[in-house]
Amino acid sequence: MYRMIIEPRVSETDGVGHINNTTIPIWFEAARNPLFKLFTPDSSFEKWRMIIINMNVDYLQQIYFGRDVEVFTWVKKIGNTSLQLYEEIHQDTRVCAKGTVTYVNFNLQTQKSEPIPDEIRRELELHYLQIES
Amino acid sequence: MYRMIIEPRVSETDGVGHINNTTIPIWFEAARNPLFKLFTPDSSFEKWRMIIINMNVDYLQQIYFGRDVEVFTWVKKIGNTSLQLYEEIHQDTRVCAKGTVTYVNFNLQTQKSEPIPDEIRRELELHYLQIES
Amino acid sequence: MYRMIIEPRVSETDGVGHINNTTIPIWFEAARNPLFKLFTPDSSFEKWRMIIINMNVDYLQQIYFGRDVEVFTWVKKIGNTSLQLYEEIHQDTRVCAKGTVTYVNFNLQTQKSEPIPDEIRRELELHYLQIES
Amino acid sequence: MYRMIIEPRVSETDGVGHINNTTIPIWFEAARNPLFKLFTPDSSFEKWRMIIINMNVDYLQQIYFGRDVEVFTWVKKIGNTSLQLYEEIHQDTRVCAKGTVTYVNFNLQTQKSEPIPDEIRRELELHYLQIES
Repeated sequence: MYRMIIEPRVSETDGVGHINNTTIPIWFEAARNPLFKLFTPDSSFEKWRMIIINMNVDYLQQIYFGRDVEVFTWVKKIGNTSLQLYEEIHQDTRVCAKGTVTYVNFNLQTQKSEPIPDEIRRELELHYLQIES
Repeated sequence: MYRMIIEPRVSETDGVGHINNTTIPIWFEAARNPLFKLFTPDSSFEKWRMIIINMNVDYLQQIYFGRDVEVFTWVKKIGNTSLQLYEEIHQDTRVCAKGTVTYVNFNLQTQKSEPIPDEIRRELELHYLQIES
Repeated sequence: MYRMIIEPRVSETDGVGHINNTTIPIWFEAARNPLFKLFTPDSSFEKWRMIIINMNVDYLQQIYFGRDVEVFTWVKKIGNTSLQLYEEIHQDTRVCAKGTVTYVNFNLQTQKSEPIPDEIRRELELHYLQIES
Repeated sequence: MYRMIIEPRVSETDGVGHINNTTIPIWFEAARNPLFKLFTPDSSFEKWRMIIINMNVDYLQQIYFGRDVEVFTWVKKIGNTSLQLYEEIHQDTRVCAKGTVTYVNFNLQTQKSEPIPDEIRRELELHYLQIES
């Protein structure tokens, strides 16, 4: 499991008074930084690998400005060329949003997906989602 | 069907050189403005009604800066208190992203969901998704 | 003068109930698209030219969700390698924000600024700011 | 001086390959959270106080994805009802952006600016900008 603490920004709220729903995918993506680094160790976009193909988010509770949130990222499934993550955002011990996202290990030069290398696979396996209750 | 033309912004791209995935929910939400107006005719946030509960997005094709996109919004399902939309983003005749989103007609004062009024329901029915091919 | 109509998005508001101040630079940049195209006709980031060096914004009036805004862009000063723009955002006949921004015509390959070509200069001169009242 | 560490997000980059210029005001605002809390201790938007009236940013160096940035906030000037801050963003020991921002202590109910209370003034004075070199 990866874990990132995020301090909500005023610009991430909306007129209803809570964090806007479009901020949630931004926070989830922010918390994937260690995974991006795994596929592209020098963080260069020329060698970028992780291309998103699906995102699903459940909005469970309103999130408020003024208190930190925690974003948790688990590996849900490792395919041949694809990777599925399960993610949660917590605030004040409540699960406020949860989602899954699917990426493919993509070679931008050849415009083709490629198998996930074994050394990355082994690292990812350390972050597997255990039994969900 | 609702339709909005959007001109991509430099700030909506990312280092990989295309529109960032987190921009897609922002564009989909932008194109829901006529629906928000249906539920809150004066656009005041005190009387806001539409609260998101789920979002699912398929990323099909890269979207580029420099050419307009079209965002299409159809009504997929009208429940008692909930509303499901089906949405697509097109660029250069290609479908680049598609998704569904579910909202609930929520009363922020009572913090309870309420039935969708008949006059809104009738308007929504004019935008039903027909047979998808 | 360049002019762009923008329809405010819910995600661009904040908890105070108006458009968040960080949205203003985003809208100003959006309205510079015709200028970016002048320097990079095919909109490719490899050939990108316009690099920002200063931005100054005066916030004059609150901007609200629910009504369109107009963004106006004038050329204020054309230097040898630099370009200064003057910009305004209007809503309901009120000037809500105004600002100046300075760009340099930068060659990303050589990492050096270059003179603004004459044909671009002539086009820019058509958009000069006249006497401000 | 206030100090915040920020980890750049992919969504904050642009096609040129660096952090987009519109991200800088967002980071500066993020780092003002302790100041917002000073004026609105419970972080509620109904009691919000700090309304921006001017922002000036110098872009000095490109900022890259993959390495943390530090945002520094100093109090530059405390007026009767207004507050001016001086801010810097550092990455890898380089000053990449600097700016000043002016806020007014505004009462949203009466729509009038009000004097900055003495206890806030005393706290702000602890963060005064010393001699700039």
